[in-house]
Amino acid sequence: MDLKTVRNYINDEWVESKSREMLDITDPATGGVIGRVPLSTAGEVGEAVDAAQEAYWDWRTTPPVTRARYFYKLKEVLEDKFEDIVKVTSIDAGKTLDESRAELRRAIEMVEVVCGIPSLMMGDSLEDVANNIDCVSTRQPLGVFAAITPYNFPTMVPFWFWPFAVACGNTFVVKPSEQDPLTQEIIFELIADEVGFPPGVVNVVNGGKDAVSAITGHPDIKGVSFVGSSNVARIVYKACGETGKRVQCLGGAKNFVVVMPDANLEATVPALVHAAYGCAGQRCLAASEVIAVGDIHKPLRDALLAAAKKIRVGPGTEENIQMGPVISPEHKQRVLSYIDKGVEEGADLILDGRGVKVEGHEGGYFIGPTIFDGVTPGMTIADEEIFGPVLGIMKVGSLDDAIDVIQKNNYGNATCIFTTSGASAREFTYKAECSMMGINIGIAAPMAFFPFGGTKGSFFGDIKAHGREVIDFFTDKKVIITRWI
Amino acid sequence: MDLKTVRNYINDEWVESKSREMLDITDPATGGVIGRVPLSTAGEVGEAVDAAQEAYWDWRTTPPVTRARYFYKLKEVLEDKFEDIVKVTSIDAGKTLDESRAELRRAIEMVEVVCGIPSLMMGDSLEDVANNIDCVSTRQPLGVFAAITPYNFPTMVPFWFWPFAVACGNTFVVKPSEQDPLTQEIIFELIADEVGFPPGVVNVVNGGKDAVSAITGHPDIKGVSFVGSSNVARIVYKACGETGKRVQCLGGAKNFVVVMPDANLEATVPALVHAAYGCAGQRCLAASEVIAVGDIHKPLRDALLAAAKKIRVGPGTEENIQMGPVISPEHKQRVLSYIDKGVEEGADLILDGRGVKVEGHEGGYFIGPTIFDGVTPGMTIADEEIFGPVLGIMKVGSLDDAIDVIQKNNYGNATCIFTTSGASAREFTYKAECSMMGINIGIAAPMAFFPFGGTKGSFFGDIKAHGREVIDFFTDKKVIITRWI
Amino acid sequence: MDLKTVRNYINDEWVESKSREMLDITDPATGGVIGRVPLSTAGEVGEAVDAAQEAYWDWRTTPPVTRARYFYKLKEVLEDKFEDIVKVTSIDAGKTLDESRAELRRAIEMVEVVCGIPSLMMGDSLEDVANNIDCVSTRQPLGVFAAITPYNFPTMVPFWFWPFAVACGNTFVVKPSEQDPLTQEIIFELIADEVGFPPGVVNVVNGGKDAVSAITGHPDIKGVSFVGSSNVARIVYKACGETGKRVQCLGGAKNFVVVMPDANLEATVPALVHAAYGCAGQRCLAASEVIAVGDIHKPLRDALLAAAKKIRVGPGTEENIQMGPVISPEHKQRVLSYIDKGVEEGADLILDGRGVKVEGHEGGYFIGPTIFDGVTPGMTIADEEIFGPVLGIMKVGSLDDAIDVIQKNNYGNATCIFTTSGASAREFTYKAECSMMGINIGIAAPMAFFPFGGTKGSFFGDIKAHGREVIDFFTDKKVIITRWI
Amino acid sequence: MDLKTVRNYINDEWVESKSREMLDITDPATGGVIGRVPLSTAGEVGEAVDAAQEAYWDWRTTPPVTRARYFYKLKEVLEDKFEDIVKVTSIDAGKTLDESRAELRRAIEMVEVVCGIPSLMMGDSLEDVANNIDCVSTRQPLGVFAAITPYNFPTMVPFWFWPFAVACGNTFVVKPSEQDPLTQEIIFELIADEVGFPPGVVNVVNGGKDAVSAITGHPDIKGVSFVGSSNVARIVYKACGETGKRVQCLGGAKNFVVVMPDANLEATVPALVHAAYGCAGQRCLAASEVIAVGDIHKPLRDALLAAAKKIRVGPGTEENIQMGPVISPEHKQRVLSYIDKGVEEGADLILDGRGVKVEGHEGGYFIGPTIFDGVTPGMTIADEEIFGPVLGIMKVGSLDDAIDVIQKNNYGNATCIFTTSGASAREFTYKAECSMMGINIGIAAPMAFFPFGGTKGSFFGDIKAHGREVIDFFTDKKVIITRWI
Repeated sequence: MDLKTVRNYINDEWVESKSREMLDITDPATGGVIGRVPLSTAGEVGEAVDAAQEAYWDWRTTPPVTRARYFYKLKEVLEDKFEDIVKVTSIDAGKTLDESRAELRRAIEMVEVVCGIPSLMMGDSLEDVANNIDCVSTRQPLGVFAAITPYNFPTMVPFWFWPFAVACGNTFVVKPSEQDPLTQEIIFELIADEVGFPPGVVNVVNGGKDAVSAITGHPDIKGVSFVGSSNVARIVYKACGETGKRVQCLGGAKNFVVVMPDANLEATVPALVHAAYGCAGQRCLAASEVIAVGDIHKPLRDALLAAAKKIRVGPGTEENIQMGPVISPEHKQRVLSYIDKGVEEGADLILDGRGVKVEGHEGGYFIGPTIFDGVTPGMTIADEEIFGPVLGIMKVGSLDDAIDVIQKNNYGNATCIFTTSGASAREFTYKAECSMMGINIGIAAPMAFFPFGGTKGSFFGDIKAHGREVIDFFTDKKVIITRWI
Repeated sequence: MDLKTVRNYINDEWVESKSREMLDITDPATGGVIGRVPLSTAGEVGEAVDAAQEAYWDWRTTPPVTRARYFYKLKEVLEDKFEDIVKVTSIDAGKTLDESRAELRRAIEMVEVVCGIPSLMMGDSLEDVANNIDCVSTRQPLGVFAAITPYNFPTMVPFWFWPFAVACGNTFVVKPSEQDPLTQEIIFELIADEVGFPPGVVNVVNGGKDAVSAITGHPDIKGVSFVGSSNVARIVYKACGETGKRVQCLGGAKNFVVVMPDANLEATVPALVHAAYGCAGQRCLAASEVIAVGDIHKPLRDALLAAAKKIRVGPGTEENIQMGPVISPEHKQRVLSYIDKGVEEGADLILDGRGVKVEGHEGGYFIGPTIFDGVTPGMTIADEEIFGPVLGIMKVGSLDDAIDVIQKNNYGNATCIFTTSGASAREFTYKAECSMMGINIGIAAPMAFFPFGGTKGSFFGDIKAHGREVIDFFTDKKVIITRWI
Repeated sequence: MDLKTVRNYINDEWVESKSREMLDITDPATGGVIGRVPLSTAGEVGEAVDAAQEAYWDWRTTPPVTRARYFYKLKEVLEDKFEDIVKVTSIDAGKTLDESRAELRRAIEMVEVVCGIPSLMMGDSLEDVANNIDCVSTRQPLGVFAAITPYNFPTMVPFWFWPFAVACGNTFVVKPSEQDPLTQEIIFELIADEVGFPPGVVNVVNGGKDAVSAITGHPDIKGVSFVGSSNVARIVYKACGETGKRVQCLGGAKNFVVVMPDANLEATVPALVHAAYGCAGQRCLAASEVIAVGDIHKPLRDALLAAAKKIRVGPGTEENIQMGPVISPEHKQRVLSYIDKGVEEGADLILDGRGVKVEGHEGGYFIGPTIFDGVTPGMTIADEEIFGPVLGIMKVGSLDDAIDVIQKNNYGNATCIFTTSGASAREFTYKAECSMMGINIGIAAPMAFFPFGGTKGSFFGDIKAHGREVIDFFTDKKVIITRWI
Repeated sequence: MDLKTVRNYINDEWVESKSREMLDITDPATGGVIGRVPLSTAGEVGEAVDAAQEAYWDWRTTPPVTRARYFYKLKEVLEDKFEDIVKVTSIDAGKTLDESRAELRRAIEMVEVVCGIPSLMMGDSLEDVANNIDCVSTRQPLGVFAAITPYNFPTMVPFWFWPFAVACGNTFVVKPSEQDPLTQEIIFELIADEVGFPPGVVNVVNGGKDAVSAITGHPDIKGVSFVGSSNVARIVYKACGETGKRVQCLGGAKNFVVVMPDANLEATVPALVHAAYGCAGQRCLAASEVIAVGDIHKPLRDALLAAAKKIRVGPGTEENIQMGPVISPEHKQRVLSYIDKGVEEGADLILDGRGVKVEGHEGGYFIGPTIFDGVTPGMTIADEEIFGPVLGIMKVGSLDDAIDVIQKNNYGNATCIFTTSGASAREFTYKAECSMMGINIGIAAPMAFFPFGGTKGSFFGDIKAHGREVIDFFTDKKVIITRWI
């Protein structure tokens, strides 16, 4: 991979940012610089918005069936160049190849759903709402939308939004994470070269905080989709509140996994290990805290420990690696401080990933699988999102106690239960206040045709990402009442 | 009607506010004081929220079918006491009896829709989202919601929200307008006495600005529905953005009515007069600006003038009256200044309602039907919401010109066209950026089973009022992914 | 109750049949004649159809909102006269009062769903299916529909159909069972007196085979809904096939209940006993065959036997009775022959209800709770529908074996499993070919807002009874494609 | 094109029929034999059904997402080989290349809709239908389905059914028309070679009447979709009624086109000519009878005559041809007799296509564009479906008269109106009893995501072809009621 400077993609042109500020993009597995990313200015965001605004009317009047065909083509292109994209992501984000594959597969699944836009964007009709008066509702796009997306799923997250918005007839500006913008660069190169949306329909602007402010403040942007930490989610939600925009903000998470005494450990442990350490714990669906109910605590803990020890840590680009580095030295430091804090607050560090070394990759931002036992609510590592390969284990006496822990936590993204009992599963899904629920599934990621998003401190807004539901975010339901006679 | 002090209804008790601040409630038709309303404190709002929070879990676990039955009962009660409520509204808000009837009818229609909650709140299911993995989404309520509602439809607007929210399993706090709180007082007396929701399920707190701030700031309120002016809508939207709440704000409007040269004037004029002067122009669906296309201008203007002159202005409680007073002396003054401004800016005042006298009601806040001809975009009366019985007439050369006027206005609530041509109607509904559209209908008010709300400066949020759509605002769609095998 | 001759209700008039053929209606608890029912002629069916046809256009052009209001009223009336109807049903059909209450409650629930018809009958809309071409689908009623309903739920079954059809704008002819027509007589008296549908909108014709043929053969009837035995269901399905009508036929059932070794017997046994002996086994959701998996067989059998012995058999009209008689002497004889056949084929008759005596009701058609153990597939009592208080018990080795028994049976109406295991429940619901499934529920009767009906030999057609689904049966989805520009 | 014998495609093998009966396939443009088609036996149908039955369970347990991917691939393949297929169809069916292209495009659109199957086949869910009892409905496939399809759209019609059925998890047997089976042969060669459904999932059996009987009679076929003449539709509907199958039969049509005095003739005439003569009138959406309202009769008639005269008739495989031959000498004869009959009954033959000659193609089955003026209801050519290039013109006095003609006709497939008036369009669509309605569109063919089918004598059944609606035909909605607690 060349040392490239990431460009903006505006109005179907690849343009270099005129920003004076640039950040290095590093390979998390080596620490080596692999590119540079501009922190585009508000002016550059404005150019993208102008292009999108300019493209809007023609695109909006293109029939949905025709708009959908671009997405059938997009699917083909992404399938064709699947492994090319995967490689970039694994270098860019430090993910294992399988992790990169999984998120590209998800991205494609979004495109697949969007191919059904003619059915999905239908409105309703009723004859004779009163004598001789008929009523029809029709979904119309609104104009320019934008998404601000995080580093941890550099391929997938932009696809949660822009294909839906664009299929509905809107135009779009994507701002990928400045920490791993290379993935969207290659994807949009393919889009530009092989899919051929009309100029301005979808645009990419790279940048940081200024670009974010420019987006939330731009009068021509009708709505903003954000995925990132809860802190920034709150800021973006508030900023869009000030400017009167539509907004949906997916924030952080603390995902508890309840393991009941009747759980099948053989199936539970691999699922849990995968859920805890996949993407080095950097995902809002990471299983970060196991709540063992009753006596299963000891065998579960032992089995988790044994399994976690076997995880092969290393550069994601190698095929047999099971866990890659975290995204940056700063983030590594942040995770390490959480581990220190856990020790300090009295949790029992039964597996310590702080000193992990990967031969030949000494500059990489690796942290080994880490496990704390004896975690209790109130400890920092029990309450806050660590976003690293750190798994806590709590022990409680009953399912009710477990649910109580979940209710009291500030986040409400996802949670899971491992049990063989129908009753426990129902009690859990009925009561626990999280929006994505797994039963014997460690990562409760809804498929593209269901909505993704949480509640409480994990989500701000009312319409979540993807699924048929998100169509409502990207359209205005116009109601037409007609009397002819 | 006695001079009563309006109380709060909290936890199924009628409680007097301890607030030191009270406002007089006046009869707009006489100016006489008919009651007093407290400006409840943040603490009192808090008590209502606490009651609602306390009632929440039991209500949420009541089956939807059972919750619906309260609404079948509510419908019966409202039908039974229909005229009693109507009388209160007509005194309280200065409306004609027919206007009060119409909005109570609408309120009942909301209740009717809500009776179907078991069908309306269904989630989705799909077997085998992957091998042996099933997915179900289920709508769960969220907790306590609140609505802040305006004076112009004191009966109906609270019903746009609370029945939907409560039927979904949430609990609720209603803050009616402090200008005419008597209508909700009588309605909630009936609810308390004859419907019997469990204590705390629905509560009423009277008040002003402080109560609004208390609502937008209260950490236990999950979402806020607001209807009022765009200025306050923006403030509430922003305040909820700051506190991370769900929010839907319906603001003001400037509703243009396009009359095409081929329109049937015989049907158009009465519809227009009704749309312009109903509720003395105090409605967000008021037809406030007629855009005459081409030569229809003159006959239309003449016919409107003739018809407007015939409107019987007087106290709404008398059966033969066609237009009542506006809500308050302050508001009367505001409308009069708009008329002055119109004259000042050069519009042609062809009917002047400023000096209207209603015998025996000299203290009433009456304004007579007013018409400006020669209005042009850019004039204050062309661009701003007047919210009084003032109709402007513009003349343009073509449908495209008319649409252009609409696009450039800041509001986007409703608009209508009068035409016999299918092509003109389609062009108009396709292009004009307003969310509620009438074809040969002056007031494009969607029925309860369709959504109500606008776009641009008339609406802040993404989910509108009532209809099946609002269920999404009042529920969290929990996604449950299950593997048993 | 007087000895009354049941009349037909045609065009809002109560008319005596001119048929020469009459049947006695007997009180199943005493054998005493309590009324007479005419076997109306084809001509009389024709008169009802003519009335319905005549009423059609005005009713079809009545707005759905207005049509719905008749059903709000109907709900009120049925609630008001609840116990009056219940008493008639218990005499007429021999049911316990609680059974009569349960089915009237269900009937009302149908009416409740139908109140939501404006939402339920909406069509779809899409703008720009091609450039400048829009498409809207709208559901229109079709004309006259008819239902032919069985004796076992004389209150409820007609309500599965006619309220849905009529709310959609169709008109209707109901033919109740000639064995217990008194229930619909009282219900339609209430409808005529207190609801006031326009004349001809809904009509009742009493009769037998000739009336059925007249219905399936009448050219003006657009569709037929039938509930009864599978034999007659096939005949009606075929007859409507010949005349090209829409048709949905719900037939008989053999409902297997699988009890897993991990089932909670304390909850299972009462549920099972209720499911087996409710309505004296005369229901298409009766649990007629228990499949005990593994060692639970013995304790389950013992508990069932003990519980069945305690059932209080007697006239349904007495409050403390748990099981009433069967409908007729002929049917009693039929059930007894099945018991004889079971003995003959080698099943183990562990509880014999053949000789039951109810003091003071020697003429009643009582059969006591009956249990066969040692039933195996291939025995007549294992394969056929008995429709009486006869419960068979099989023993199998595994859930797969149990599912295998179900798959091989000709019927596919309902089935249930009792288990605490999520995995067993999922395996079962995924595989067993029945359309209504209970998990730890003995009678898997879907609520009114879900569809009711089976598969295999239990159902002929594609659209089932009630739920939002049945709207498709009662409407034609007209698709309107429009180009104006 | 070689003289090939069409084979059956069973269990992913191409097999030659062992039937002794063969028919010649002729090129309608030359009369030359281009292949032979076997009239497969009931036994061969049985083999296909067995293969489908065998394939069923594995296919049904394949996740919908995975099943959908075969259809994304199928779309790609059909796009890639678009022109290859088009050429075969134009020879096989005598269509113009553009006509063949149009129907292949429609076939692909079906595949596009089917790609959305995960969203389309979702069931519903509701928590707490009673306390602690939840209800979920899930759509499950049923087994083997079959379609019997006509010659006039040899490409498209099979795609109305099998992709939907198969995407839902069923397996399938297609029986194409024996008159032009070559199109499906090439399509299924592509499917077999490039898409790779598992063996037995979709099968093709060629044949005639015996194959039809074998299909309607086969106990393992769960449902039959038929498109053809109303006579055969009735026979198939009846046959499936006898065997208790699901069935949907699309029959013939007599499509009236109303032209109002205010219609824009410049746009109307080309649309009408295309609608009347496309596919040489052999389509169930053919505009076969123009009803001119009032004085537009004369100019319309003149313009139609002028336009019809200019139609270039010839072999469909040549690029500049506008109308090809009819399918067979027998059918040509049938159409000619209708023309004779029209003359005989007194209609005014203003354009006579009987003697048309196409140089170099004297053996082709050509009929030239034909127009009758002065047609009146009651004439054979006014009432019956001709299915050839014969357009009748009626004159009536008013829209009501026109609607009256439509209502009295036995068919109810499609109808159109040409008008500029919104009121006329609404009156027409509200009243005329046809299921597919065009406003200023001559061929009201709903897009793939809306349903296709008629009413009255044009359709037998309740669920129509394609659209989201047809999913109900191909699935059983299983309702699962669960109590865990």
